[in-house]
Formats: sequence, C-alpha cells, structure tokens
Amino acid sequence: MTLDDDIALAHQLADAAGAVIRPYFRARFAQEAKEDASPVTQADREAEAAIRSLIAAHRPGDGIIGEEYGAEHADAERIWVLDPIDGTRAFIGGRPIFGTMIALMVGGRPVLGVIDQPISGERWIGAAGQPTLFNGRPAHTRPCTELSRALFATTAPWFCGGFDALRSAAGDTLLGGDCYNYALLASGHADLVVEEGLKLHDWAALLPVVEGAGGRMTDWEGHALHKGSDGRVVAVGDPALLPHVLGLLER
Amino acid sequence: MTLDDDIALAHQLADAAGAVIRPYFRARFAQEAKEDASPVTQADREAEAAIRSLIAAHRPGDGIIGEEYGAEHADAERIWVLDPIDGTRAFIGGRPIFGTMIALMVGGRPVLGVIDQPISGERWIGAAGQPTLFNGRPAHTRPCTELSRALFATTAPWFCGGFDALRSAAGDTLLGGDCYNYALLASGHADLVVEEGLKLHDWAALLPVVEGAGGRMTDWEGHALHKGSDGRVVAVGDPALLPHVLGLLER
Repeated sequence: MTLDDDIALAHQLADAAGAVIRPYFRARFAQEAKEDASPVTQADREAEAAIRSLIAAHRPGDGIIGEEYGAEHADAERIWVLDPIDGTRAFIGGRPIFGTMIALMVGGRPVLGVIDQPISGERWIGAAGQPTLFNGRPAHTRPCTELSRALFATTAPWFCGGFDALRSAAGDTLLGGDCYNYALLASGHADLVVEEGLKLHDWAALLPVVEGAGGRMTDWEGHALHKGSDGRVVAVGDPALLPHVLGLLER
Repeated sequence: MTLDDDIALAHQLADAAGAVIRPYFRARFAQEAKEDASPVTQADREAEAAIRSLIAAHRPGDGIIGEEYGAEHADAERIWVLDPIDGTRAFIGGRPIFGTMIALMVGGRPVLGVIDQPISGERWIGAAGQPTLFNGRPAHTRPCTELSRALFATTAPWFCGGFDALRSAAGDTLLGGDCYNYALLASGHADLVVEEGLKLHDWAALLPVVEGAGGRMTDWEGHALHKGSDGRVVAVGDPALLPHVLGLLER
C-alpha cells in the first residue's frame, strides 16, 4: 500500500461523504444534542457510516476512530480518523463553510489529511512529504512574521483560552469557521488559528494540510501533536509567528 | 417608475458589484483600516463605484448613501443605500459568506433590499408587498416560538450587547456571518440575529428581505427601524419570538 493508494482512497471517502451530505444541506433532517451539548444530525451519522463501509471494504485491517461511531481496531498501526461534519452548527445553520475531515494516522502520526467542503466543491488534501493541494493545485501559506499584522481566526472565544490577549495582539479577528479556518490558513488567507478542547478527530486531518502548505501546527507548548495531546492546538501559516503566539496563551 | 423597474435595476446593480468583486476574492488587493479600525479594500471601493455609476445613469434624480463614498442628494425622496461588501473581514479571510447589500428607501422607509453573495451565486431580494425571493424562488422564515429552541446567530459578541444572556437562553449560537445571517434567517435556517452599532447601510437592505420572508426586524425597543435609528437591531424569523428577545437585551 503506497501513500498514493491511500490518497486515492481518501478522495473516494470524501466523495462518498459529500454525496450523503449534500441532499441534507438546508433541508429537513433529524437532529439531537450529544452528551457535551454539541449537535449531531442524521447527515453526520450517515456520512460517517458511508466512509466506514468503504474503509472496511478497501482496508479491512485498518483501525477507525470516528466522531459518531467510536473506535474499531484502535490499536492498529494504521488508523483512519473521521469527522464527517466538522462545524455541525454551521451545517445546521445553512452556512457552506463546514467540512468533512478524514485523516490517516500511521504509528500515531497523521500522514494524510483531507478537509472537504461538499457544497462549494472545495477540497484540501495534505500528505507527508508532499505539497498540500487545494482542488488539485498546490496551496501555500503566506508570510506573516508580526502578530500585529496577522488575521486570527477561531470558532468562538469560549473554545480559545487566551482569546482576549490574542485578539488585542492580532491585526484582525474573525469568528466562526471551524475546520474551514485551517483550510484558509493553508491557502494563505489567514495567519493564525487557536483552539482548545479538540478531540483527535477535530485536528488529525488539519495537521498534514497545514504543514504541507508551509505552516506549523503544535500544542500550546509548541510540541508536536500526537494521539494523546490535550486538545489545545495552534496553527500558524508562517512558522516565525509561533513563538509570539505561544507566549500569549493561557496555559 | 414602478417597484418592478427598481427591482430590475437592483439586479443589475448586484450583477455589476459581483463582477467587480469576484476577481478580487482570494487574490491580492490593496487594503487599509478605516477611522473606526474596520478594514476596507480596493474591492469595496470599486464595487461601490460600479453601482453608483449605474444609478447615476439610470436614476439620475435619486439620492445615494454608500459606505465607501458617502452621501449624494441625501434629501431626495428616493435614496439608494449601498454596502458593497458587508463582512469585509470575511471577504479578506477568503470566506464566501460576505455580501453585497443594496437598498432603496422611499420616504425614509426601505422598500427594496438585496443581499447578494457573488461567489456562491446566492441572491436574496425583498420588496414591499412581495414575497422575498432567494435565487428567484420564495424564501420563508421558519416557525420558532421558544427561545430555548432558537438558533441565534451574530457576527461577534462585541457587536451584540446582551450577548451572554441571549447565548444562555438560545438553543444554540453561531458566530461570524455578517449580513449572511439575516439571509439564512429569511430562508428558515436560523431564528434570531441581534446586533448593535449598525449604520444605515448595514441594515437597510436586510429589512425588506427579512420581513418579506415572514420575519420581523426592529430596534431593541421593538420599534420600526428608520433612518435615524440607533443602530441596534433584532431580526426574528418568527414574530412570536420577538417579545422574549427584547426582554433580554441590555438597553
């Protein structure tokens, strides 16, 4: 199995999820609140089921960790990490900036990540040792060495400790956005994303996309993210920005 | 001049603005901060100039109040109110959920409003006495009589006094979005939008869109919005929600 085979499969998985999700967008669907009060819909569940059945068919020995249906073979060397709809609130609200996230972890490290927006038809894919692609063309982060000139994006202040300090220091701040913020950072339209409380499925796909575009993504200590990380993440388009940001975070 | 003639012109104006804006989206453009620290770009300015020249050609006697180039004949009975890019931060950040807003006020009351998203090709148009149309088809708000079941959307907590009380009382809260929140409310995907500090060009186009879809839009006292309103607005999809919301606002 080469990485290119896995990339080809990842495209298939994202295509399948998109085909499930699109008819539900701005339509009626069943919806409920999960234990942590975050919403989940029929679309989340059916999209993840579609991805899982393709993985079972094409990579029967691989493990799977998904937001909606939990873990299978979680001790496998190769694990697919799935978030069928990241930004479920945005999806429910009819905003076309949620995303399907699919990652492949090998030996505990994400080597492949997809962020797919099935309504606008936008797909970012990052893979270890390869440039991140946005709809088939290389995506690049932009230079930004000064926080005072940075566009800082984060979903909500309550998912981002140190928010006030970051907002004061940053050039400008944009709320909402979920995984789409990291995708836009990879394409050079934002400079900084900070969040906390992320589970593995919330960040595993982001890392290869951000780093393959020239950015850095770490925990709040500046350490590499791994399966057991505490859910606090920083992504910068320009690695030179990272030390300035880490100093402002409330740890 | 019938309202239908003005609607036809409004479509032309939005088409012209979109044609200016699209090439700048996610491209390089000049950008600066205005006196109130809000950003403005070359795209904002050129889009407004394009709209103004069409109005001058087709409705030479009408007044114009625009975000970027100020007022002309502001004492005219008929005034076009323009915000070429509402959500300039979102535009700069590459998010396809900013909007061009065009309103026609007659005798101080907005009788026609357009919210246009030129990247996704989405256009909401509302006109007095007519149903709001989304891409040519009627748009309707949805029923929602209980705040505890409402999806509340607002651009940022700092543009919304009473935010914490609203967030606690609402079913769920979505940040970011600018004028797109009101458009999605008109289409029945959100229930409540509250903002303050809006200028005339920030709300004039929203009112006909929201009310023509079955919603209500008022100031924080529940009074009709007019040219001299204080910039505090509430929009509800279901008019029955309004009294519950007004009681929570910090006046």
